[in-house]
Amino acid sequence: MTAEIFPKVKTIDLRKKHIGPSCKVFFSHDPIKIVRAKGQYMYDENGVRYLDCINNVAHVGHSHPMVVKAGAEQMELLNTNSRFLHDNLVQYAQRLQATLPEKLSVCYFVNSGSEANDLALRLAWEYTGHKDVITLDNAYHGHVSSLINISPYKFHQLANAEQSKSVHVALSPDLYRGNYRQDHPDPATAYADDVNNLIQKAHEKGHKVAAFIAESLQSCGGQVIPPAGYFQKVAQHVHRAGGLFIADEVQVGFGRVGTHFWAFQLQGEDFVPDIVTMGKPIGNGHPMSCVVTTREVAEAFKNSGMEYFNTFGGNPVSCAIGLAVLDVIEKEDLQGNALRVGGYLTRLLEQQKEKHPLVGDIRGRGLFVGAELVRDRVKLTPATAEAQDIIYNSKLCFPRLKEQHILLSADGPHRNVLKFKPPMCFSEEDADMVVEKIDQILTGVNPCSQLAIVI
Amino acid sequence: MTAEIFPKVKTIDLRKKHIGPSCKVFFSHDPIKIVRAKGQYMYDENGVRYLDCINNVAHVGHSHPMVVKAGAEQMELLNTNSRFLHDNLVQYAQRLQATLPEKLSVCYFVNSGSEANDLALRLAWEYTGHKDVITLDNAYHGHVSSLINISPYKFHQLANAEQSKSVHVALSPDLYRGNYRQDHPDPATAYADDVNNLIQKAHEKGHKVAAFIAESLQSCGGQVIPPAGYFQKVAQHVHRAGGLFIADEVQVGFGRVGTHFWAFQLQGEDFVPDIVTMGKPIGNGHPMSCVVTTREVAEAFKNSGMEYFNTFGGNPVSCAIGLAVLDVIEKEDLQGNALRVGGYLTRLLEQQKEKHPLVGDIRGRGLFVGAELVRDRVKLTPATAEAQDIIYNSKLCFPRLKEQHILLSADGPHRNVLKFKPPMCFSEEDADMVVEKIDQILTGVNPCSQLAIVI
Repeated sequence: MTAEIFPKVKTIDLRKKHIGPSCKVFFSHDPIKIVRAKGQYMYDENGVRYLDCINNVAHVGHSHPMVVKAGAEQMELLNTNSRFLHDNLVQYAQRLQATLPEKLSVCYFVNSGSEANDLALRLAWEYTGHKDVITLDNAYHGHVSSLINISPYKFHQLANAEQSKSVHVALSPDLYRGNYRQDHPDPATAYADDVNNLIQKAHEKGHKVAAFIAESLQSCGGQVIPPAGYFQKVAQHVHRAGGLFIADEVQVGFGRVGTHFWAFQLQGEDFVPDIVTMGKPIGNGHPMSCVVTTREVAEAFKNSGMEYFNTFGGNPVSCAIGLAVLDVIEKEDLQGNALRVGGYLTRLLEQQKEKHPLVGDIRGRGLFVGAELVRDRVKLTPATAEAQDIIYNSKLCFPRLKEQHILLSADGPHRNVLKFKPPMCFSEEDADMVVEKIDQILTGVNPCSQLAIVI
Repeated sequence: MTAEIFPKVKTIDLRKKHIGPSCKVFFSHDPIKIVRAKGQYMYDENGVRYLDCINNVAHVGHSHPMVVKAGAEQMELLNTNSRFLHDNLVQYAQRLQATLPEKLSVCYFVNSGSEANDLALRLAWEYTGHKDVITLDNAYHGHVSSLINISPYKFHQLANAEQSKSVHVALSPDLYRGNYRQDHPDPATAYADDVNNLIQKAHEKGHKVAAFIAESLQSCGGQVIPPAGYFQKVAQHVHRAGGLFIADEVQVGFGRVGTHFWAFQLQGEDFVPDIVTMGKPIGNGHPMSCVVTTREVAEAFKNSGMEYFNTFGGNPVSCAIGLAVLDVIEKEDLQGNALRVGGYLTRLLEQQKEKHPLVGDIRGRGLFVGAELVRDRVKLTPATAEAQDIIYNSKLCFPRLKEQHILLSADGPHRNVLKFKPPMCFSEEDADMVVEKIDQILTGVNPCSQLAIVI
């Protein structure tokens, strides 16, 4: 079967002509055309197989048959809005609720992580009557205008960035590169105190804080894992100021961290956010997402008098797909797999750290892993170009990961953190393969003579 | 086949427990549970068939087999993000572009009308460097926070509504109830002058206008059809102020108006907006949408330095579905059907206007039709309760439309406009049926004796 309509040059040409130039492709000098995918593998138009280490959206594996079947069958039957009663909607809400602490019981179904985070802000503004938002440095929460405002990862890209006066940027709780590190006696308290200082400064200006928002683990921000207890302390400060705690699970939820279903649960059972937002993996690629909150917040939002209607949100097809994703996670024990394979991958990467001075830090939970590259382990000079070079460099004789058909990316404020967030069916063999290739590239084995063997 | 998981009371109970109380159901005192749908018909859990006059999202008919097949086949093959090259994306962009004036050549694919309108604002802000937005009274442009700000239809619902200082509300160009009516010598100029006045007032305060945004035909605002030439004159004023014209086609695009594929084209061939946003019907219920703009605007957005990435936007499944929708519209001549059946429906409703004093105005283009009900044809006192009573009133002996298994809704600022926007496969027989029932209800035929016959 050929899934190609145009030759690749024509595809590139049409893309230049008709797709917004702000929309980037991977490997822009030599982009990849993918025509099909299965599990953790993607295939280009020539049938070349790529190992996918980056697509956390294809959570239970690309084109999973159970998810496809659930979507196709429901599409055939009915796809309409949530102003009609439908069992998929309520069953899905019930199933999601069962994965969460009991007080997080009310769902709003929407279409993307951005819609979810925007709604979370609206809920917080309405519940508190306050306006200001505290966000973490390097955070990314979505592409709609309200979220660009609270995403330093994005607004720092702007030539004439102007930070909204109602947005306050707290220190990223980064134990490797941040203000308080591994050697600090109590980084959780220190980072939480920074949030509290921002609250106090806002109060001094007559502002009031509606919410603190953070990814449960910072993703684009550099695979940052906050110290345990940090969220509890932040929540105390924020609640005292009358604000809400929003945990953004768009990138890291649904069992990826291995030990827990939600990444915020890594902080301990005593921590419960006021609002949780979900996205990317929730529908294995189907456009859907969800906001879950408490009865109190939901009732306050209702009492504003404004109906909330989302045309596509919570339609029977999206809910059928969401249910199938939960089923597959359970049936195939993907959370367990994330724990096992993620642990294995982390150990392999730790060995690389011992072997190669460039590898400064390995951090991860389950199949959410970062390898931070530095030129100097004391100064922590970011090895940005080197990270890029491992992923892709067509000019060098020895092929890099892309040329060896492995998809990996680098992120973080310095783009020097190799970011592993593969489909959850990733195997130990896959981990072996990618780390072996990284090892070869870092070792700089006599490249040209090996070329024939490696390819 | 039974598609029911819970008995209806349990569905209602779970919905109360787990779904945000701001999310309303139709006929809240006795909601309908729909389990399947086909064409212009929906079926409840007991197999009762409802004629659907309201779901413009199911544009080519509920669960259209060609659309379902396209979606299912592509889901099986690949569903991933647009950072990889894919032919569906570029082919779909090319096909959409072919329906539009040539200068509207650059697409951004997103997931909902709300995401589309928010991105349109971001494009306008970035291109112009200005901040203010002019919107029409009673307008609705979406549910994310930036759009609530420009949606008087929504922000007027708030108890403590506070209009943003950078948003200016222009008169709705309503020839029936607005400031300038059928008897005005030149309502297009008069309404456009109101926009110009707002621009001048903004300038006096040192503000600058980034955009004027309007639905090409106001939908929630009361099925309002602006006088021809209005958009051209508004565009002149807005362009002179350095702003852009955004035509919101989320509700009214894709051939619904019958004579044209896009509703803004009703204004004449000399009118071309700077940005067009699409939504609802684009994927026949699949969560997807699109923003199309000019090369100049797209390049300015790129030059801001910020990448635009939308996780689900433009994925191969959404594009396959979008392509199938375009195919079906063409193959089944649904635009032609909208013209013919819409004209027929409008004529039937005009007869009702002659017969029943309550029917004050009939206005429509294709299968976008409104019947405005008034208690007094001179004072135009809105017949709000009467409109609701036609649609649904379980307490009366003679069954209303809902009890006769016809789905219709009322909208507009006074909720007194019966709003017809059915799937585009709506037939003359369907039009006969719904108008006959409305006639019976308005006539108030001896109700109880007829009950047995009617049901």
